Amino acid sequence: MVLSAAQMAEVEAAANARTPTARPVSPGLEALLFRPIPVLDHGFIRVIDYMGDDAAVVQAARVSYGRGTRAANEDRGLIRYLMRHRHTTPFEMCEIKCHVKLPIFVARQWIRHRTANVNEYSARYSVLDREFYIPEARHLAAQSETNRQGRGEVLEGPEAARVLALLREDAERCYDHYLEMLNEEEEGGRPRDPSRRGLARELARMNLTLNTYTQWYWKIDLHNLLHFLSLRADPHAQYEIRAYAEALLGIVRAWVPLTYEAFQDYRLGAVTFSAQMLAVLRRMLAGEQVDQAGSGLSRREWRELMAALGRDG
Amino acid sequence: MVLSAAQMAEVEAAANARTPTARPVSPGLEALLFRPIPVLDHGFIRVIDYMGDDAAVVQAARVSYGRGTRAANEDRGLIRYLMRHRHTTPFEMCEIKCHVKLPIFVARQWIRHRTANVNEYSARYSVLDREFYIPEARHLAAQSETNRQGRGEVLEGPEAARVLALLREDAERCYDHYLEMLNEEEEGGRPRDPSRRGLARELARMNLTLNTYTQWYWKIDLHNLLHFLSLRADPHAQYEIRAYAEALLGIVRAWVPLTYEAFQDYRLGAVTFSAQMLAVLRRMLAGEQVDQAGSGLSRREWRELMAALGRDG
Amino acid sequence: MVLSAAQMAEVEAAANARTPTARPVSPGLEALLFRPIPVLDHGFIRVIDYMGDDAAVVQAARVSYGRGTRAANEDRGLIRYLMRHRHTTPFEMCEIKCHVKLPIFVARQWIRHRTANVNEYSARYSVLDREFYIPEARHLAAQSETNRQGRGEVLEGPEAARVLALLREDAERCYDHYLEMLNEEEEGGRPRDPSRRGLARELARMNLTLNTYTQWYWKIDLHNLLHFLSLRADPHAQYEIRAYAEALLGIVRAWVPLTYEAFQDYRLGAVTFSAQMLAVLRRMLAGEQVDQAGSGLSRREWRELMAALGRDG
Amino acid sequence: MVLSAAQMAEVEAAANARTPTARPVSPGLEALLFRPIPVLDHGFIRVIDYMGDDAAVVQAARVSYGRGTRAANEDRGLIRYLMRHRHTTPFEMCEIKCHVKLPIFVARQWIRHRTANVNEYSARYSVLDREFYIPEARHLAAQSETNRQGRGEVLEGPEAARVLALLREDAERCYDHYLEMLNEEEEGGRPRDPSRRGLARELARMNLTLNTYTQWYWKIDLHNLLHFLSLRADPHAQYEIRAYAEALLGIVRAWVPLTYEAFQDYRLGAVTFSAQMLAVLRRMLAGEQVDQAGSGLSRREWRELMAALGRDG
Repeated sequence: MVLSAAQMAEVEAAANARTPTARPVSPGLEALLFRPIPVLDHGFIRVIDYMGDDAAVVQAARVSYGRGTRAANEDRGLIRYLMRHRHTTPFEMCEIKCHVKLPIFVARQWIRHRTANVNEYSARYSVLDREFYIPEARHLAAQSETNRQGRGEVLEGPEAARVLALLREDAERCYDHYLEMLNEEEEGGRPRDPSRRGLARELARMNLTLNTYTQWYWKIDLHNLLHFLSLRADPHAQYEIRAYAEALLGIVRAWVPLTYEAFQDYRLGAVTFSAQMLAVLRRMLAGEQVDQAGSGLSRREWRELMAALGRDG
Repeated sequence: MVLSAAQMAEVEAAANARTPTARPVSPGLEALLFRPIPVLDHGFIRVIDYMGDDAAVVQAARVSYGRGTRAANEDRGLIRYLMRHRHTTPFEMCEIKCHVKLPIFVARQWIRHRTANVNEYSARYSVLDREFYIPEARHLAAQSETNRQGRGEVLEGPEAARVLALLREDAERCYDHYLEMLNEEEEGGRPRDPSRRGLARELARMNLTLNTYTQWYWKIDLHNLLHFLSLRADPHAQYEIRAYAEALLGIVRAWVPLTYEAFQDYRLGAVTFSAQMLAVLRRMLAGEQVDQAGSGLSRREWRELMAALGRDG
Repeated sequence: MVLSAAQMAEVEAAANARTPTARPVSPGLEALLFRPIPVLDHGFIRVIDYMGDDAAVVQAARVSYGRGTRAANEDRGLIRYLMRHRHTTPFEMCEIKCHVKLPIFVARQWIRHRTANVNEYSARYSVLDREFYIPEARHLAAQSETNRQGRGEVLEGPEAARVLALLREDAERCYDHYLEMLNEEEEGGRPRDPSRRGLARELARMNLTLNTYTQWYWKIDLHNLLHFLSLRADPHAQYEIRAYAEALLGIVRAWVPLTYEAFQDYRLGAVTFSAQMLAVLRRMLAGEQVDQAGSGLSRREWRELMAALGRDG
Repeated sequence: MVLSAAQMAEVEAAANARTPTARPVSPGLEALLFRPIPVLDHGFIRVIDYMGDDAAVVQAARVSYGRGTRAANEDRGLIRYLMRHRHTTPFEMCEIKCHVKLPIFVARQWIRHRTANVNEYSARYSVLDREFYIPEARHLAAQSETNRQGRGEVLEGPEAARVLALLREDAERCYDHYLEMLNEEEEGGRPRDPSRRGLARELARMNLTLNTYTQWYWKIDLHNLLHFLSLRADPHAQYEIRAYAEALLGIVRAWVPLTYEAFQDYRLGAVTFSAQMLAVLRRMLAGEQVDQAGSGLSRREWRELMAALGRDG
């Protein structure tokens, strides 16, 4: 994460300033505002602004006039009820805005979530920084042999070393050539060679590798953020985007603690059983011994059911 | 507008409370928060929360680290540039949440704007208040004879009196029968007749007329709010929704004054000329006398062009 | 359902016409095209157009070049996999367009599903027909005593008769006055009284009751249609919108039979267990006797769990 | 564009097959179905499916029962009226689905249009082909000196040769290393070295350059397609995405010729004048000599106005 001293000073000044507002305030999130939370080797998430808190969810559900007079205990019960029964619109009444620095291949997955607002740093207009994602050794995984879109064991020895060297060298060389084509010096943007014109930025960027970092402002409502997290904080998500999802989970916990707890219980920690799985479960509870062959489930669904029930398949 | 004394006291308390925040604050909008702005005979708009200000638009456009150090003058220029060239995403970085009370037939037009978050008071769950929109005499217009979806002159005399009487009596009678079917007393919700069960609320509501008031929480980003306003603050919009749009225009002016000014100049006050209209304009500027017959424009387009140029058709 | 003889003839002509196309064709849905499926007392759904079939879902998932050469058996497995793991984008690749006639209070629930395209019959522009929804006697339910937004037992005797009379009379009277204010004859639209101007249509409509029928064109992709159905074909949905959802389920079954089957197994017939419910299940499977008090679940959640397991609470 | 002989045979078979349908058919688009339209050096657009035609726009605007009995002449007038007055919902009633092959940096611009459905070829799951975009010499432009996100003159001589060599060599080398890290042979996917495991696909892809081609299925309604085209067929759009927009314009013309004509006249060929520009225009039409200094417009706006009026600034 490369924030200059001047940028860090500006961040600290913003984080420490206070202005009075009549709006609802989330004390947990105020404490996090503006300061970058590191993710991966050069990335970060900074919360820039937010609207609403747990009480705003409750208030929308009640369409009441004030901030609500019920006990906090009743708020918790209502939020859990809303989460359990997928009443999603009250959670849309909170909003958050983040500044995110992330590798381009992660940005390409992230942007698929359409119900959000995005302003990305423009490489048509500006020159990207020399920053690339290089995985830590413990994240350098082999292709899974059982799951075509998953990871297997960690690579080791010369194969790992060769991969790291290739990733690093190719990213550096492509970036060097990017600057060369732009005809720019690394610092200050002066032309290297006054006799050359320099390739248009919108073209030169195509030489960069997909692990180059980009950045954007991302704004989303709480309901859609939770939906994003249910997909991207999941073990099936690629590790690199999951790292961002986990930082966001911490932000949600600080911002709307009751909603976070309900989300853990009814979404992240929950499991959906199909009609066929339910039939098997009923037979098991009636004392019947059921195995995969007799269950009517595919092998894969049987394994999923056993895993959910904490049993060996 | 029927806010009880207790509700008004709660509103005042919320409007006068102040909590420190590190977030950007819009002084103009803080002064408006929570207090109902009257619209039509019983409706209102209350701003409940907001995120961002003019500087947030600029900041998103620059994807910068801080709140921006350029002079306000440059901010104004950038906002005007963004508005003129329809760079819409920076305006999505501000968000506003309002509590609106409005007649159902207005709500049905309003909800067609899909890019917003809505929580409506549920008449499946609760009983609606006895409040109906009855137009003021000066808004009681005849059907337009030239525009199938417009209004003509104001009705007068016995015809106007008869219309007002019908609207009032039908709304009242339908509401009386609504309560009777629910088997509820007007106040307090006690059953009228203990021997009856009362019709389900979700059914009884179908007896209400379309001028009955409903209410909702409505949350929208600034770009989509401006789009809503460009359609609903337009002279072609039905007067009743335009009354809400005009209240919202005042809110936008207090909230993001630079954006408001640019919106007036480049959207509300702007006119789009078709390829054919441009060709006519060029001929006129070259000194040619052009009339409708020689313009190649339809009568209707010719009238629109003359109106835009402030000329008689 | 009031289609004139001329309209029915036009519908039959369209339903029986055939033009060659190179596009994928769903034989099941071709057989249903254009003909109204009756819903409630005057409503209907007519499929007007569609794009894609089960194979289009598979093709999108494979992003392949052709229509796919795998056996139908593999298509079924892939569709079930996509549904089980909530890979939603391939289901967005099919689209359907319907013409729906429905009471306004149902339309108000329906329109809350934002990811769809809608063109509604305009009562600013045209005059609505004299058609109101009056529930059948067996659907005339009392307010539920346990569920604030539900129905209890069916009303009977004089209470039922009174409710039906009120609904019918109020709708008729309001409609009579609507025509009177418009100064229009029932048929043909001639003015009743040449000395009057007639109230603007956009105003007169506010006198109608919420059970008046409206109509619209509604276009939606298959994923969002299934999401709509998971909410509106649910026993907690109001009966009147559920009646439309059930007609749509029949349409889905004819259109994309493999997707329909997977939707039944993994969505409509499925149950989601919270983290706490899963813990209880594991204890039960280990042979422990668990009751509500010892489960850590609320009474309501305990009842939901027992219901899912087909047991008495 | 690399379609194998087997793929081309499959495409031809699909394009030549005909099945009867009761749905509306667009003859112009049927003739284009399935066959790839080349774009850039290796890209293409293939129309895969569509729903509706010009008559469907008219039908939705009328919410009528049949396909419409008015003369084609009236259809044209209504479509032009809808386009001129930005009545957008009837254009949402048509839908198109395309298979697109495009460089990743173009895909990153394209995906910013959120109101569309997308299934992209997954480089987590599969191995990308060896295909990169290398600009033709005449598109190898220098950075514009006046517009930070634009292109200036074409590069020539050794600078151009060097840029082309760098783009080609870096893309090739990165791709070679991608296969090496995957431990895959170019053809057939056999492992190169049985003693190695091969890096996970989801990681290896990050070594590819942004000019590598990807592909997706893209489905969008006609209104949102026209909005996409108004931004991307614009001279300010980057040439590479404009090349796709121009291919799409040809598709729209074949599909819905009346809508295409109205779009040309009222959108692509139209110009919006701000309130200030209108004031200047009125002065000019009144015979006044106005120059930039006296116009109250900025230099930039003055230039835009003069350009729209076909005059020297």
